Amino acid sequence: MSLKALALNGTLKASNFAEESSTGKLMELIAEEFQKYGVETETIRLADHDIKPGVTSDEGRGDAWPNIRKKILESDILLVGTPIWLGQPGSVCKRALERMDAFLEETDEQGRMVSYGKVASVAVVGNEDGAHHVSAEVFQALNDVGFTIPANAVAYWVGEAMGSTNFIDLKKTPEAVQAMISTLARNTAHLAKLLKQRQYPSQEG
Amino acid sequence: MSLKALALNGTLKASNFAEESSTGKLMELIAEEFQKYGVETETIRLADHDIKPGVTSDEGRGDAWPNIRKKILESDILLVGTPIWLGQPGSVCKRALERMDAFLEETDEQGRMVSYGKVASVAVVGNEDGAHHVSAEVFQALNDVGFTIPANAVAYWVGEAMGSTNFIDLKKTPEAVQAMISTLARNTAHLAKLLKQRQYPSQEG
Amino acid sequence: MSLKALALNGTLKASNFAEESSTGKLMELIAEEFQKYGVETETIRLADHDIKPGVTSDEGRGDAWPNIRKKILESDILLVGTPIWLGQPGSVCKRALERMDAFLEETDEQGRMVSYGKVASVAVVGNEDGAHHVSAEVFQALNDVGFTIPANAVAYWVGEAMGSTNFIDLKKTPEAVQAMISTLARNTAHLAKLLKQRQYPSQEG
Amino acid sequence: MSLKALALNGTLKASNFAEESSTGKLMELIAEEFQKYGVETETIRLADHDIKPGVTSDEGRGDAWPNIRKKILESDILLVGTPIWLGQPGSVCKRALERMDAFLEETDEQGRMVSYGKVASVAVVGNEDGAHHVSAEVFQALNDVGFTIPANAVAYWVGEAMGSTNFIDLKKTPEAVQAMISTLARNTAHLAKLLKQRQYPSQEG
Repeated sequence: MSLKALALNGTLKASNFAEESSTGKLMELIAEEFQKYGVETETIRLADHDIKPGVTSDEGRGDAWPNIRKKILESDILLVGTPIWLGQPGSVCKRALERMDAFLEETDEQGRMVSYGKVASVAVVGNEDGAHHVSAEVFQALNDVGFTIPANAVAYWVGEAMGSTNFIDLKKTPEAVQAMISTLARNTAHLAKLLKQRQYPSQEG
Repeated sequence: MSLKALALNGTLKASNFAEESSTGKLMELIAEEFQKYGVETETIRLADHDIKPGVTSDEGRGDAWPNIRKKILESDILLVGTPIWLGQPGSVCKRALERMDAFLEETDEQGRMVSYGKVASVAVVGNEDGAHHVSAEVFQALNDVGFTIPANAVAYWVGEAMGSTNFIDLKKTPEAVQAMISTLARNTAHLAKLLKQRQYPSQEG
Repeated sequence: MSLKALALNGTLKASNFAEESSTGKLMELIAEEFQKYGVETETIRLADHDIKPGVTSDEGRGDAWPNIRKKILESDILLVGTPIWLGQPGSVCKRALERMDAFLEETDEQGRMVSYGKVASVAVVGNEDGAHHVSAEVFQALNDVGFTIPANAVAYWVGEAMGSTNFIDLKKTPEAVQAMISTLARNTAHLAKLLKQRQYPSQEG
Repeated sequence: MSLKALALNGTLKASNFAEESSTGKLMELIAEEFQKYGVETETIRLADHDIKPGVTSDEGRGDAWPNIRKKILESDILLVGTPIWLGQPGSVCKRALERMDAFLEETDEQGRMVSYGKVASVAVVGNEDGAHHVSAEVFQALNDVGFTIPANAVAYWVGEAMGSTNFIDLKKTPEAVQAMISTLARNTAHLAKLLKQRQYPSQEG
């Protein structure tokens, strides 16, 4: 069975501003690992798109969200990546999560949110500290709007307290990070396959 | 397929102190709903047991955790319930989560944490405000130690800002809460069955 | 002593989109209360301004932040207001906090961040659940970048679990909310006066 | 002016179990620094005491909290220290915070919580990741129950992602940590002096 993953890169910077992104680097490593399990990944760098603030699925003229939302709905897996700022998820990632609030009222004919059956995992990168909390926020937000979270669904890297090294400048991916990436990809793909074959039951009655 | 759920009630009070618990009430409603899906639930009121602080699976003489841990490992589903205090999970619930930190190094012959394949959901009750954050903390902690989180895995009740009503004193379960309970039970049972039939693959190599 | 407060309203909607904002309503009530203590408040509706993503104080052409930043530095008090979405602070508020990350390296001749001596408080509004966590995030972010937090520095309103009422549609401000507003204004003004008279000491040596 | 600080060490282990504590080490460094500002510190290792779960100020027979609470009320500064487990505050620290929930209804003749005028700061230590979130939780809990938070009120150390080094085993305190300790001590003492001279006004009327 082949699977599609959509990777939303929440780096604060558009591509024309800073071509490389530590968050993007970690997400690439995950996308490569996904291939081992038949998962093809498309990546969207959110800061390249004009996603309007709001909690509906279409905030009108010039809103880039409807197209991104369409890609989410066509995917089996959603990988949300974000840098850490002040120990918290970045505002670009937050905006995308916020737009998925609309899923709460978007259900199929059996009462299931449009996100049901999709599996989500998380990539987090920072100079230092904050990855667990970021994953907590993203897990909860995505679970509220209908995504399923596989075992060990986060891969992250942060440096020592008050550090300033960027993940992208590491000479080599640390073994612990590589292990998290392998685990994330393996478990995410496994669960996505199970749910693609056996969607959640009708939520009616 | 029949399934076993273990429900850990994190109310701060032992049974001999306050026979009724709002957290316990919500968990009972969930356990009843679980029955519709062939899930039998055993409940442990954590405050009735002397769970030592620590992050190993056995903290020595008098530690009640090894027995609770054994029951977790025999179950397909873990339901974690907690009251909200100061907008956060209670210390009794936190202690149980902390003890599961040991799972990080407890793996089977295929490198899978002992919790792999088990599904977790969450029940939260408070006079007011805090349920989303509590679920975020519990989801992340349980996911880190190997549990899988089904879609819409939390049921909660809280009153209006600064309220003082207890869930147990409500004359009737609010419809919105009943809907969350139904969803939680349906999705948790569905995912637990899938994973019981098709465990995550080996984490080796 | 007269004091200046800057109120940043993090509602997701620009003024031309939705003239009224529940967050704005709560902030107005706080601003009125501030007057009792000689505090004049200027309010900025963040969504009316093009605040670029980033973590510097000037993200270049078209960035509205430098002007807002200037007003923060001219104020004695910063009031941060945000709606709750998915139990978390909104992305518009997050973006403003993120921009203050730059304060970490902006110090005066005595090594103090430019925010030192300023007092911060928080206003949070949602249909339901999330205020404590939102205040936790905002307190920590603002404290990291140099603000001081007075006792009981948050005023909030949320409805019962899964509620859909808006604060702006309440016929009357609930007494508990009015009490929080009074406390917030009294304590914030008191502490701002103390620190205006007696700034933190030099951070050198 | 001389000041008293009470340091609550939330390490999970009692003194007879593990004589040294990384959390304790960081708190000692802060206590030494406090001396420069005329602050005398008394430290309580919470795990050495039988603090009952609950949200009142006296949970009855054998409860060690009333004595600790008395020391909090006699102090000008509260320093809360905790290890990080699963990216979150430890259960021992959480229990102490939970007990302070009682302050919400313990007011003086002018309607001020018994904690008003006291300043709180935070020490956090972990093998890796979690310090910002822990400080967010502790700041919010303590602020809710009446404490004031000075600028840059946290000192922490954590290692790189997935690290296993203990703070106590570092050969030398990293400069960045020493800088945080200096800042924390300086600002905490400054604000405590201001508030000791000029308590918050009456909360009546």
